[in-house]
Order: sequence, then C-alpha cells, then structure tokens
Amino acid sequence: MENHKIILQYEGTRYNGWQKNKNAPNTIQDLLEKIIGNITGENIEIIGSGRTDAGVHALGQVANFKLNNKIEPITLMNEINNKLPSDIKILSCNKVEERFHSRYNAVEKTYKYTVDIGNKPDVFRRRTVQHYPCQLDFDAMEKAINYLVGEQDFKSFTSNKRTKKSTVRTIFSIDIVKYGSEISLIFRGNGFLHNMVRILAGTLLEVGIGKIKADDIEGILKKKDRSLAGATMEARGLTLVEVRY
Amino acid sequence: MENHKIILQYEGTRYNGWQKNKNAPNTIQDLLEKIIGNITGENIEIIGSGRTDAGVHALGQVANFKLNNKIEPITLMNEINNKLPSDIKILSCNKVEERFHSRYNAVEKTYKYTVDIGNKPDVFRRRTVQHYPCQLDFDAMEKAINYLVGEQDFKSFTSNKRTKKSTVRTIFSIDIVKYGSEISLIFRGNGFLHNMVRILAGTLLEVGIGKIKADDIEGILKKKDRSLAGATMEARGLTLVEVRY
Repeated sequence: MENHKIILQYEGTRYNGWQKNKNAPNTIQDLLEKIIGNITGENIEIIGSGRTDAGVHALGQVANFKLNNKIEPITLMNEINNKLPSDIKILSCNKVEERFHSRYNAVEKTYKYTVDIGNKPDVFRRRTVQHYPCQLDFDAMEKAINYLVGEQDFKSFTSNKRTKKSTVRTIFSIDIVKYGSEISLIFRGNGFLHNMVRILAGTLLEVGIGKIKADDIEGILKKKDRSLAGATMEARGLTLVEVRY
Repeated sequence: MENHKIILQYEGTRYNGWQKNKNAPNTIQDLLEKIIGNITGENIEIIGSGRTDAGVHALGQVANFKLNNKIEPITLMNEINNKLPSDIKILSCNKVEERFHSRYNAVEKTYKYTVDIGNKPDVFRRRTVQHYPCQLDFDAMEKAINYLVGEQDFKSFTSNKRTKKSTVRTIFSIDIVKYGSEISLIFRGNGFLHNMVRILAGTLLEVGIGKIKADDIEGILKKKDRSLAGATMEARGLTLVEVRY
C-alpha cells in the first residue's frame, strides 16, 4: 500500500469538527473518507494530525491515508477537490514513506486565535474572527505569556477532565500580532490539550482587560484547577495554521 | 436638516443588491433605511453612490441621508452597526455639507473583479472570488486594456438596452494584480454602466484565454453591439472598492 500525506484548509463553520463521531455525522474526516472511498473504490481510514473541534478552521491541517490504488497524487488531489464542497480544499497531496503517521510524528503545531477589538469585525473576515470589543493591555499580556511558555503541566488549561494521560506540554512561543483592530495570538507548541488554545486565549485576553493579573498565571498553572483560568473562547476565532514533522 | 455621509462595506452574497426594489425586498438600502428609521424615529431616504447588483460586494460604498435628529455621527454609526447583521458594516459616518449628494458628486469609482485561476479558490475567500481555472495570456490582456482605457462609448459593454441615456464613460485605468493564483482586475473610471465591469472582466478574461483577440477590442467598441463582447461574469467576484468625490 502507498501512504499519502495531504495538507488541507477548511472553514470549519458548518462542520462538527474534524473527527468522526457517531452522534454528529457532519465531520470533515467523514466527508474525506467517503469521497476518497468513492474515487478509489477502497475503504480507507484517514488519520488527522489532531482533531479540530466543531467550528474551528484550518489553514494547514495534515492527514494521511493508505491506498492500494496507484493513482497519481496530483490527480487524486484534483479529483478530491472537485468533489469536496467549496469550504474544504486540499492544498497538496504527496506519497510519503509507509511509517509516516500524521498524529504520532507531529513535532510542532501552530494555532492562531484572532479577535477584533474594534466596533465590529470586518464583514469579509467575520467567520474566522471573534468580536472582543475591549481595550487590551498588551504589556500585561506579554508578561503573562512569559509564564506560559516552556514545558509545563497545563491541567488548568484544558476542559478534559480525564486525568490518566499526561497534561504536560511544551509551548515554544506565543506571539501577539496586530493588524488594524484585529489581534491574533499565535501559539506554537509540541501539542495542545483539548480546548487548551481557546482557554489560553481566553486567559490572555482576561489579562489584557485586567480581570486576571499577569503574575497570577504562575499560581494558576501550579494549582492545576481549570476554574482558575480564563473563559474558553468560541471556536469561530480559532485556526490550526501549521503542523511540522 | 443635517446631511450624513457614510462609508460602508458589505458581503453582498445574500442580498438582492443595493437598491430598493418592490419585487425583491431584501436589499441593503431597505435594511439601512429601516434601521436608521428605527434609531432616529425619522422616515429617511438613503442615496447610494450607485447601485450594486445582487451578490456584488463593497469595501467602500458611499451613501448619504438627511436627519433632523441631532445624534452624533459616531453614536449613530455604532447604533447602526449594532443593529445591522454581521455582513454589513458602517466604516465611517460624518456630517457633510447639505448639498453633498453621493451619486451626483462622485467623480471616480474603483471596482475590482477577482478570479482564481488555480484548481480551487481559497476556502476563506470563496465568496468574493470567481473560479476561472484557465491559463491567461497577460500580455494580450494588457494590450486589450490599452484599447479600453479613455473616454469611449461603452454600449457594447452594458446589458442595459435602453438607449436614451449616454453610454459614454471614461475609464482612467485597468490594472491586473496577481496574488498567488488570484488575479484581480482593478477598474477605475468616472462611472460604469449596468453590468459594465462584469462584461469588461469577461471580455478581458476571454482575451486572456485566446477566445477574443486583443486587437478586436477596437472594433467591438465601435460596433456598439453587446453580443460582440465577452460574457457577463458572475456577481460573486465583483467588489465596489472606493468612490471618490
């Protein structure tokens, strides 16, 4: 069998997230498996680099799947794109070595969370930007970021209550990028827990408006208590930007 | 009464265009008049710089209306934005001299028509970009542009068959802007006839694919026959960018 790696973008607005789910059929994984199955006549399973939740977008999600069919990757990509709706697009398709696994082999993921702090989001970007009409103290946010970067136990920053698996992750960097009234928080790390980026964004924004003190972040991390961190921001503003291997 | 000038953006996808129309109630003018009427308690009439057709977008449409209410423009703008849906946004609101008329006083309008010539449009831009998966001969298109620029009778480039009004307009410039697989045609002129930008775009693209010869443009203009020019492109790719006074 040949292993294919795809990079894809999607506007997540009308999907129940990436991952197959018996109770919520309209997922991106479902749709891709069905379309690739129709094209190749094979019963395939797609492995994503990670699940994105309902409503979350992707600029560079990565997935892989194995085929017996010897179809050329470029032909396959074009056929998939023709059959996909206009809110999902395969950007590249390549044959990769058989042991490549898009989830296990990922070494770095980049997410961005974007808010508009002005009176109303740009109409052309409203589906990927969360309205947050508040003045932000960027110095305080930068100070909070210093506490968050590095290898830490992010148990306070996940909504997943199952405690068996490790909640230690490494954040390589968090950058604040300003573009007019839009503020993007760019998170790079070796992996993120369930809802972690949305809770980190909510916490940093609450530091920005003075509801949480930057110096309290150290204690919030130590106490491993979800209730101490900020709100889980809405899915709309979250985009998976890139996965590195 | 005080005369207010607003600049606004909208994603035209779900509207029946700018202009009030008894047969198609869902227009942007209707919605604005209703909302401003509700805020001020006055029966107002909004004058737009020009109608945009169903599905056409705007980055900088201009309109004006007169009010007895002494409400501050910034307060009015925020109240209108709060009541408008997320696909229409007022960018600015200012008091202007009483004789200002957004249609009669316009001296330059800029439209852009954007196509994606790649295998599929970017998912986040699909509502404002028309898919046109063809190789384009940009040199031929530039040559055709030379025939179109200037003061000319554009009767071959309008779908309006009523002949009483002048069909002479001046195009100041047409620029081709490339951004990845997206190609924007930027039209600046003193005014445009009904469907003129969409027909100009269709004609230039047909020159780009070799269906029309650049040197035929002169004859198409002279013969004043709509059937000789290219197709009317879909509304999706058209955006009113700016109106100057």
